[in-house]
Amino acid sequence: MKNDKILLSHGSGGKASHELINDLFLPAFSNPILDQLNDQAVLQFGDVRIAYTTDSYIIDPIFFPGGDIGKLAVCGTVNDLAMCGARPLYLSTGFIIEEGLSIDDLQKIISSMQKTADEAGVKIVTGDTKVANKGHVDKIFINTSGIGIVGNNVNISGSNAKEGDIVIVSGTIGNHGISVLSKREGLEFDAPIVSDCAPLNSLVMDMLSVSKNIKCLRDPTRGGLATTLNELAMQSNVGIMIDEANIPINDAVRGACELLGYDPLYVANEGVLVSIVPADEAPNILAKMIENKYGQDAQIIGEVIAEPKKVLLKTALSTTRIVDMLAGELLPRIC
Amino acid sequence: MKNDKILLSHGSGGKASHELINDLFLPAFSNPILDQLNDQAVLQFGDVRIAYTTDSYIIDPIFFPGGDIGKLAVCGTVNDLAMCGARPLYLSTGFIIEEGLSIDDLQKIISSMQKTADEAGVKIVTGDTKVANKGHVDKIFINTSGIGIVGNNVNISGSNAKEGDIVIVSGTIGNHGISVLSKREGLEFDAPIVSDCAPLNSLVMDMLSVSKNIKCLRDPTRGGLATTLNELAMQSNVGIMIDEANIPINDAVRGACELLGYDPLYVANEGVLVSIVPADEAPNILAKMIENKYGQDAQIIGEVIAEPKKVLLKTALSTTRIVDMLAGELLPRIC
Repeated sequence: MKNDKILLSHGSGGKASHELINDLFLPAFSNPILDQLNDQAVLQFGDVRIAYTTDSYIIDPIFFPGGDIGKLAVCGTVNDLAMCGARPLYLSTGFIIEEGLSIDDLQKIISSMQKTADEAGVKIVTGDTKVANKGHVDKIFINTSGIGIVGNNVNISGSNAKEGDIVIVSGTIGNHGISVLSKREGLEFDAPIVSDCAPLNSLVMDMLSVSKNIKCLRDPTRGGLATTLNELAMQSNVGIMIDEANIPINDAVRGACELLGYDPLYVANEGVLVSIVPADEAPNILAKMIENKYGQDAQIIGEVIAEPKKVLLKTALSTTRIVDMLAGELLPRIC
Repeated sequence: MKNDKILLSHGSGGKASHELINDLFLPAFSNPILDQLNDQAVLQFGDVRIAYTTDSYIIDPIFFPGGDIGKLAVCGTVNDLAMCGARPLYLSTGFIIEEGLSIDDLQKIISSMQKTADEAGVKIVTGDTKVANKGHVDKIFINTSGIGIVGNNVNISGSNAKEGDIVIVSGTIGNHGISVLSKREGLEFDAPIVSDCAPLNSLVMDMLSVSKNIKCLRDPTRGGLATTLNELAMQSNVGIMIDEANIPINDAVRGACELLGYDPLYVANEGVLVSIVPADEAPNILAKMIENKYGQDAQIIGEVIAEPKKVLLKTALSTTRIVDMLAGELLPRIC
């Protein structure tokens, strides 16, 4: 490890997070399932393939335009299951609550979790609640883990991309991060920016109904689209060329990013997925995505290339630049 | 709810925790699996029965005699799986780390988790790490969830106890809570008090090798033996009579409890289980438990009665008193 202390950037989802995983967690916990480095484990039980994942949510503020920590905790884990093509079925919840949190706030969070679980068609089947002394935790942290079933003939992994495959993004990027930042910092824009936080399992099921040959799926949360594309390129040992002109971004988000000095490619999303699919099936898959309410703004943004094994961006000026993984920490406590 | 704010006692595992669950969580999340109120969900996937559970660990201090937060996070979840007779197989980990935690400490915690996972025969297959700003979380919190397989013909639940059944405790009680408290408060005793923190799945497998008719298993963590016995009595709609003279307690723990004014019946354990078994099989099960290193001090401590539907303690003076569930909070951040 380069440092002797944990830094905020170790939780960014970017370079430092990957270093922490590669230098500390993997050497200790290494096993064939974990070593695949997908956002979920796929476990074989007899004839049944089960997807299994976990995430902790520490977002600040706990209520934000378009969602709250409860909705986020359900969507995030549902989406991690959906990203291997699994049908999410069951969630666990682990609450860590600060002494003094209002019961009203907790009630709102719980109701929001159940509403989102209903939409996603998952059941919360087991849970745990801890309370820490005032000042030992900031309001409320929620962990959810989840279990889903992976259908037959579905083989989705970050390592499946091949030269010539097409990269699709399901919606406008950057909304979640900018929405949370605006609320946290009390920024006001002409057009309100609302988080995209949403359960994407119905979108994935729609996509799989058109093609079982979807190769990669991942939700670009911490570290944003740029980091996720880098992860996929590394896992598949390929390059990815994307076209700036085709990346869907709301005008309000673009404006806020310009004002604040953020690159939307690195801003977190909570209701967007990236998919890599065979070129000949891309038009059908895209057409189906656009019919789903969470895929209306889906676009083809680029393609997989053999060399260089990097993520490249063709800019509006027709120049090409390398898009690296997030370095440092853009926005702490964003999810 | 009686209160408008979350209190420490809502995380005690005792009366206030049960109120929070009954008044807030169950009405929102209610479904047939959750409503069973066991420490784990049992899910049917084709012919396979899967046990599923979660717990967050927020113990202070993170290193204590006999263990650390990493060992605890593996043992606690392994034990919750074992308590329905499941064979624990896979764990997830969710780390929430305070900016500034030393990498050395994190490394020690991770190594301890892996060592304990190896002993318990489980694999850590998926995980997540978040970093919160300094002061937003106290050092490190760990969530683990776990998946195990429930064997055929095993039907263990808190609702199975019947009049005449025998209550066995697997070891001396109170060691974990007093060990952690001593370390936290800098108390020194003549004999060092070491946490009992241990994975109990091998002990449960040994017990099941003698009898498939074990009715209830539960590990008396927060709220201690008294609270667990009350939970079992309520779930099974029976009473339980225990004999003070037969409850195994180390002299050092007994002495510390007298000095500090704690009742060991309410002090947390992390390597002890309570089992309710048919009377005719109790001697064989007990004999097998004593052969296991985590069951050496096992004892029969009482029996199930029809009336009154309470937990009763026969004292050393041959009087009888009611032992209620923990009220208030004995020791915050004990697990």
